[in-house]
Amino acid sequence: MREPARGLGVSPGRAAGPAYRMARPPELPGRAPVTDAAAEVKAAAEALEAVAEHLERHAAKAADAEARAILEAQSMIAADPMLLESVEEGVAAGLGAAHAIDAGCARHREALLAAGGYFADRAGDLDDIRNRAVAAVLGLPMPGVPDPGHPYVLVADDLAPADTATLDTAVVLALVTERGGPTSHTAILARALGLPAVVACRDAAGVEDGTWVAVDGGAGELLIGIAEDEAARIGEEAGRERERVAAGTGPGVTADGHAVPLLLNIGSARDLRPDAEGVGLFRTEFLFLDRAGAPTFEEQVAAYTVVLRALPGRRVVVRTLDAGSDKPLPFLGLPDEENPALGVRGLRTARRDPGVLDTQLRAIAEAHRACEADTWVMAPMVSTVAEAAGFAAKARAHGLPTVGVMIEVPAAALHAERVLREVDFLSIGTNDLGQYTFAADRQHGDLADLLDPWQPALLHLVKLCGDAGRAAGKPVGVCGEAAADPLLAPVLVGLGMTSLSMSAPAVPAVRASLSERTLGSCQERAAAALAAAGPSAAREAVTTSTR
Amino acid sequence: MREPARGLGVSPGRAAGPAYRMARPPELPGRAPVTDAAAEVKAAAEALEAVAEHLERHAAKAADAEARAILEAQSMIAADPMLLESVEEGVAAGLGAAHAIDAGCARHREALLAAGGYFADRAGDLDDIRNRAVAAVLGLPMPGVPDPGHPYVLVADDLAPADTATLDTAVVLALVTERGGPTSHTAILARALGLPAVVACRDAAGVEDGTWVAVDGGAGELLIGIAEDEAARIGEEAGRERERVAAGTGPGVTADGHAVPLLLNIGSARDLRPDAEGVGLFRTEFLFLDRAGAPTFEEQVAAYTVVLRALPGRRVVVRTLDAGSDKPLPFLGLPDEENPALGVRGLRTARRDPGVLDTQLRAIAEAHRACEADTWVMAPMVSTVAEAAGFAAKARAHGLPTVGVMIEVPAAALHAERVLREVDFLSIGTNDLGQYTFAADRQHGDLADLLDPWQPALLHLVKLCGDAGRAAGKPVGVCGEAAADPLLAPVLVGLGMTSLSMSAPAVPAVRASLSERTLGSCQERAAAALAAAGPSAAREAVTTSTR
Repeated sequence: MREPARGLGVSPGRAAGPAYRMARPPELPGRAPVTDAAAEVKAAAEALEAVAEHLERHAAKAADAEARAILEAQSMIAADPMLLESVEEGVAAGLGAAHAIDAGCARHREALLAAGGYFADRAGDLDDIRNRAVAAVLGLPMPGVPDPGHPYVLVADDLAPADTATLDTAVVLALVTERGGPTSHTAILARALGLPAVVACRDAAGVEDGTWVAVDGGAGELLIGIAEDEAARIGEEAGRERERVAAGTGPGVTADGHAVPLLLNIGSARDLRPDAEGVGLFRTEFLFLDRAGAPTFEEQVAAYTVVLRALPGRRVVVRTLDAGSDKPLPFLGLPDEENPALGVRGLRTARRDPGVLDTQLRAIAEAHRACEADTWVMAPMVSTVAEAAGFAAKARAHGLPTVGVMIEVPAAALHAERVLREVDFLSIGTNDLGQYTFAADRQHGDLADLLDPWQPALLHLVKLCGDAGRAAGKPVGVCGEAAADPLLAPVLVGLGMTSLSMSAPAVPAVRASLSERTLGSCQERAAAALAAAGPSAAREAVTTSTR
Repeated sequence: MREPARGLGVSPGRAAGPAYRMARPPELPGRAPVTDAAAEVKAAAEALEAVAEHLERHAAKAADAEARAILEAQSMIAADPMLLESVEEGVAAGLGAAHAIDAGCARHREALLAAGGYFADRAGDLDDIRNRAVAAVLGLPMPGVPDPGHPYVLVADDLAPADTATLDTAVVLALVTERGGPTSHTAILARALGLPAVVACRDAAGVEDGTWVAVDGGAGELLIGIAEDEAARIGEEAGRERERVAAGTGPGVTADGHAVPLLLNIGSARDLRPDAEGVGLFRTEFLFLDRAGAPTFEEQVAAYTVVLRALPGRRVVVRTLDAGSDKPLPFLGLPDEENPALGVRGLRTARRDPGVLDTQLRAIAEAHRACEADTWVMAPMVSTVAEAAGFAAKARAHGLPTVGVMIEVPAAALHAERVLREVDFLSIGTNDLGQYTFAADRQHGDLADLLDPWQPALLHLVKLCGDAGRAAGKPVGVCGEAAADPLLAPVLVGLGMTSLSMSAPAVPAVRASLSERTLGSCQERAAAALAAAGPSAAREAVTTSTR
């Protein structure tokens, strides 16, 4: 059998089928003199309108709230009269519709970049809008996810949120990208959807449309040019495996009966599942976004009550507002920052305006009293023991019984034992903790290797937290992306995590993975991963011990 | 005796004298109709020219290369014809000279911010230029350091590099600021100049010009409204103490004879001192700045040879290029980044362009062979064992005998023991290590408390490195600002540091401090600081144990 191409397996499972690539961005035609400016403006306007509608339609179908918000924002940018005005100016200056869209998007992009902050983050969306609108004008297929009319393996350079939000899991069998890393959008989405995925697979560049391939998202392997009957066999095996995993129900537990509650990361009540063991991360940002002032006490009580009532008797961990100049809220009045990720965010915003946090804690406490849920509350971006103690005092003064903090900052992880003297539990955000521990922006594609959740130094900090929890007899969980990786989940349990929190679609695979291992085996895996020379070696060590 | 006002003591020593404040920025007069536009343009142009000349003059007198570079850049901005053009447009639009300067600087400031990166960093300089030029037009005293004609204690809201670069230590007795933190410019400069300094002293706001005050930069105390004879007594005592400290010579050593080499942080041969024990940090950035291409192999050999030849037989630690999108070098072609401090900087730039590093290592090796210095080489921003091993292999292949890495990233500190299996020594950059460990931008005034080098979690990482060094029998030093603090230096030695590196003026006070303590006492201080609840408690615990 021929050697498979290798990449980084970021979402386990196997699949096989014909490969199809994302349509590439359209090339601009040569410039031609404009004979009918009005017709060019009309063509451009219709193209932008079509793109806006397309994006809005996909937003409505989006898999989760975050993707929905991104697509809605993109749709609004495509429909922005300022953008159309720029395009009209381009036509007036002698450009045809396609070139005018290209130039208008470029200008708009610069303006967003110059505006900084949130707007600058949106600048990348203009490329997508430009590509779609130019394709529409030229009558080319709209760039994005292919639609061959039958199930297929999606191959791409890399996937943007706008692409992945439109994926139909009924026809996409697996994802393979040439670039990206373990924390790329592709990886996160694939795990959320339960799709096998291999990223950073350079050889995927040579795969032509229609070539039959097999993907192993656990081993990180892509077999190019297999026979159709082999694909069918692999597909059947994978299907049986998926059914077996999906058939699992009930609480998270290791093979030897050690309970590990599998909780949900949610942004609102829409993300809940009635059979969930609880909620490990209730993000409250959505209540605060896109508005001029903070939501009122009453609005907040109502929003929290909906979630708390839905899970009577079960744990719901509410995280207080995680805002900052990377997620700006106008009413907080935060300044632009040179390095927003190292700025005033999370709990730090309460240094300037403690009122927002106080109202939120009061509202959570009020909702808690009205419901029978097991309400826990925690603060994001805690760095010191003093900050943890201050937050705990405030939350308890409001009558909240169970108070904890996120561990996202290395200093807090290093002092986990001291922090646990002040609070009742810890919840580790592995993405941010990795970002700071390796001094590598989590959005930075070029540094993806440093952001791998299998980095032994990151796992070492997780262990410090787990050890502190065991010593104090207090719960310590992970609510970052790492918890959704079925191969990594047993390692985290072995490092002392007492719960794992993830998006709902990731639960079955993690449940199945834990059910197959004893706590002792989890601890052996943890030791092997900690001792490994690097993230690939750690993954390899754990994969080997599986066989 | 009355209670002293309290702040953060950031540079030890005592001083007393009359207090004078930095002149505040001039207020714009009410707008008046312009009768002679040409005269207004002339007045504005002359004011900008005067400011440019003033800054250039101060640049020539600047205390160190960095301050000089900042002042020269400011002078160039003030003399920028584009700025004058903006001012002329303001006058044409009906503004008087002062208002036109104000508007022109504001526009120029926006343009720099929009340009991003290095230019955006310079935007703050426009405020300074604006204040100086408006004052010049209005015939007001130029804002900045006061000049009462006799020695005085300088009081300010906070000090900018442009202010501090112009300080004359013959007349400034001490620095007191209302804002700022232990890593502010004020603190760093005060330690470099050996001036007592208290920052974050809110009560300093109420001190009026001419009031007699006493400053204790070790205890962080400001006594306001003392008698002149008391000031004279304090001044005499402090003078004797300074003389005693300055009289110290020879290598760094504890009271019980434990050698701790006191090395220099230098940017070029100009910062050397002939009696130095060696160089702990030779920054090579200045060779690379402000030029279109990398310096040639020959240029580099020449620059390194000058330094290496100056210290025959003594250790010189050369740090390879520490560039990144926060310190952009056009020829590296680095993209703008959302969080430059978490981006492609230091050794990471070699991922894109290994040629620059290779040429530099080859040049250092060539200079090493030509001299008799004890040449060590180290890489900045190393995060993983693999990066350390890769750098060591390259450096050794070039024939460099002693290879180490900077410890600035928490992951590298956590794996200090593994990193030391690959390299010969470690050098801790406490400023960056603190920035990442606490996820707080080192330039962020609002987060100064998190950036305090006395933070116990930061000291814990220093200890991990010290322990690793002892176990491996390899040297581990600090070349960050923390090493220049005479109160913190014994703590660092107690944590296992085998050398301390600092700017030349900081050496005498650190030498004196170490000479008064045994290694055992240093270790006790280290234990006290590590066990403290926070940075103030740590400082307090060590100060108390001094008495």
